[in-house]
Amino acid sequence: MEAVELIRKKREGQALTSGEIRFLIQGYAQGSIPDYQMSAWAMAVCLRGMNARETADLTMEMVRSGEEVDLSAIEGIKVDKHSTGGVGDTTTLVLGPLVAAAGVPVAKLSGRGLGHTGGTIDKLESFSGFDTALTTADFVRQVNELGVAVMGQTADLTPADKKLYALRDVTATVDSIPLIASSIMSKKIAAGADAIVLDVKTGSGAFMKEEKQALELARSMVEIGHRIGRRTVAVISDMSQPLGYAVGNALEVKEAIETLKGNGPRDLTELCLTLGGQMVTLAGMAASAEEAEEKLRAAIDDGSALERFRRFVKAQGGDVRAVEEPDRLPESPVQLPVESPDQGIVTALDAEAIGLCAMQLGAGRKTKDDSIDYGVGVVLRKKIGDVVHKGEALAVLHANSREEAEAVRERFLNAVTLGSQPVTPPPLIRELVADAKVS
Amino acid sequence: MEAVELIRKKREGQALTSGEIRFLIQGYAQGSIPDYQMSAWAMAVCLRGMNARETADLTMEMVRSGEEVDLSAIEGIKVDKHSTGGVGDTTTLVLGPLVAAAGVPVAKLSGRGLGHTGGTIDKLESFSGFDTALTTADFVRQVNELGVAVMGQTADLTPADKKLYALRDVTATVDSIPLIASSIMSKKIAAGADAIVLDVKTGSGAFMKEEKQALELARSMVEIGHRIGRRTVAVISDMSQPLGYAVGNALEVKEAIETLKGNGPRDLTELCLTLGGQMVTLAGMAASAEEAEEKLRAAIDDGSALERFRRFVKAQGGDVRAVEEPDRLPESPVQLPVESPDQGIVTALDAEAIGLCAMQLGAGRKTKDDSIDYGVGVVLRKKIGDVVHKGEALAVLHANSREEAEAVRERFLNAVTLGSQPVTPPPLIRELVADAKVS
Repeated sequence: MEAVELIRKKREGQALTSGEIRFLIQGYAQGSIPDYQMSAWAMAVCLRGMNARETADLTMEMVRSGEEVDLSAIEGIKVDKHSTGGVGDTTTLVLGPLVAAAGVPVAKLSGRGLGHTGGTIDKLESFSGFDTALTTADFVRQVNELGVAVMGQTADLTPADKKLYALRDVTATVDSIPLIASSIMSKKIAAGADAIVLDVKTGSGAFMKEEKQALELARSMVEIGHRIGRRTVAVISDMSQPLGYAVGNALEVKEAIETLKGNGPRDLTELCLTLGGQMVTLAGMAASAEEAEEKLRAAIDDGSALERFRRFVKAQGGDVRAVEEPDRLPESPVQLPVESPDQGIVTALDAEAIGLCAMQLGAGRKTKDDSIDYGVGVVLRKKIGDVVHKGEALAVLHANSREEAEAVRERFLNAVTLGSQPVTPPPLIRELVADAKVS
Repeated sequence: MEAVELIRKKREGQALTSGEIRFLIQGYAQGSIPDYQMSAWAMAVCLRGMNARETADLTMEMVRSGEEVDLSAIEGIKVDKHSTGGVGDTTTLVLGPLVAAAGVPVAKLSGRGLGHTGGTIDKLESFSGFDTALTTADFVRQVNELGVAVMGQTADLTPADKKLYALRDVTATVDSIPLIASSIMSKKIAAGADAIVLDVKTGSGAFMKEEKQALELARSMVEIGHRIGRRTVAVISDMSQPLGYAVGNALEVKEAIETLKGNGPRDLTELCLTLGGQMVTLAGMAASAEEAEEKLRAAIDDGSALERFRRFVKAQGGDVRAVEEPDRLPESPVQLPVESPDQGIVTALDAEAIGLCAMQLGAGRKTKDDSIDYGVGVVLRKKIGDVVHKGEALAVLHANSREEAEAVRERFLNAVTLGSQPVTPPPLIRELVADAKVS
């Protein structure tokens, strides 16, 4: 088999066989197929596509290229959740303890990542002493005892995907549904998931700006799950404005705690119940999504979800007093309200631009060597559809100094559009994509 | 400027600016843009195309990447001819002296190349003592004195094209009209041509099997010529069967001599007159192609073309006696007729397969280190439309041994199709593509 012939085949719009995809990915991972052939193939995939069978084959070859996490010692069906990424997305912090309280084991491998704010591990490290450097044995034991654990990723999962992603990043071949779908799914499968719930964001703050694309990505991933025998459900959710009100690390932890108490923002709560309902259903702990959501509401109402969170923070060494007294979490020295220059109705909030405000304040990393400032960020006071009076605060900027806050004010104001006519906020849950054999 | 953004732009089907193409090609030639970005861009070009302005820009950037041959010391308009390559294509050997006899200077840089037979230099080296290692000064002096010279290519012409071509070869990105067109045109321009006549072959023995593709390539090259100020004409000619009867090095030299004497095969003669007529017209030595062809016919009829060939061979040190006595050219020890197993009418001759027969006999090179056997090859006795009787020779195989000839016989017979109904031979000249401002 010659790589150049496989590139030609894809260039001509033909499907590669399973053996051909194995040859390409194994060869690339082992270095016998060079970057310049792989990037030509990736470009051909971007412009010619891959069918569902090829996409599933690619996913499994990436899984096979590295280690796989063995979660078989954890009892029950392990359901993982993945979000395609947005601004102010605090769902993982809420879902872990919430779903665990409903009897579903949550064994989460997580990273730090680059972005507007830190990753789940960074957010958790807002709790003084929180430790994610668990051994696999401790990780498994904690999930069996407590129902939830979060571990930093140490195993060499999907190295072929890492290598290919780095190449795609510099060859304008990132933006391809089958390549994105196989990359996401391969990581979840290598991390040991039996079933997967996907939160595919759409709108200004999402990677997939258009709902049509988001839906296509969701369908591709659900189809992969079906073909490789992992039950998979995708929720298309709105990211045309930030989720909840907080964008920052400790700020989002506080919002997560409020949500677990039943006092969270309506959109964040609704999304957590929807995603959590799918997780509980896939885990076989409820007969329907409605029944699952009822269970989750009950876990919030009776305090068991919050209690699970407290035990989770404690088990991993975090300062558990901060769950009751969130003032103990890192706070920035300056809080600067951004006053509205006019009165009107908020008609648009550019989620990506608001994320960049948080990043400029120090909440995220541009490169992997940057440090995170836990306390800083943006807390919205108004969201789409809200009426605002002249001089009223649109948001509060949490910053390390007045100068740093002032430097972001203009950027924030540019992210807000005011109108004079009432608008309906965009619907949060756009669509549910489920394999026919699952629901 | 970032290479990844230029790849993205092409991926999305947009045209790159002149500055962007310069950045890409200069960066690639200098090594600041790596192979893996260039191959992704090349694949995007294959699938998205380039417009005429981009193609012309790419051509000129490849020219600028290396040395350019300065032919300004040669009087008159220097017209170069290029063929896209076929089987038994002896036109260059005929055209050089023929066009020179009509007063057009022919300053030809030539290579050895890989293929079914050697390149023009190899064929000329069938003459004992023939030397193509001229200095540029001697080359220019000979063209001014004699009207024709052939020099081996020593200058570092279009290194960016060489590097890109090697990359395209291993990334399935060879087959792209704008990339092929710019590659060919850049080499002609760097070699100092003022005007260019292109022989674009179509049919089973050509790179462009389909006439539509050949026409598209021709139009692309003529358009490049127009944009960069080099008058360019393309002739689409048939390569569904070999040109003339001989396929081999010395065998083709003998056929060229016969053609210069006026006794050549009809198709080879017609093509030489057509291409030569365009060369003479572009050089301003005739008011019309008809007038030019008349001049060329006269040069054959009055012996001046053959005389020019004799002086050319002599000037470059070749054994000029072989022009009068072609038996002095290398001859293979074995000539094996291939007898027809049936009677019938030749309806097809697979030109590529016949080329491979010649190659198997030793007439061509597979790799650049292979040596050429001047005497061997195939001489057809029948072409499309000819009647053949059972036992009559279809061709004669010129080989080094009876065994080597017998080993090719079956392959040759498979390249011949016999039918029972009369067929019209495919027309030789399919189309003429000329810039409106030229003809």
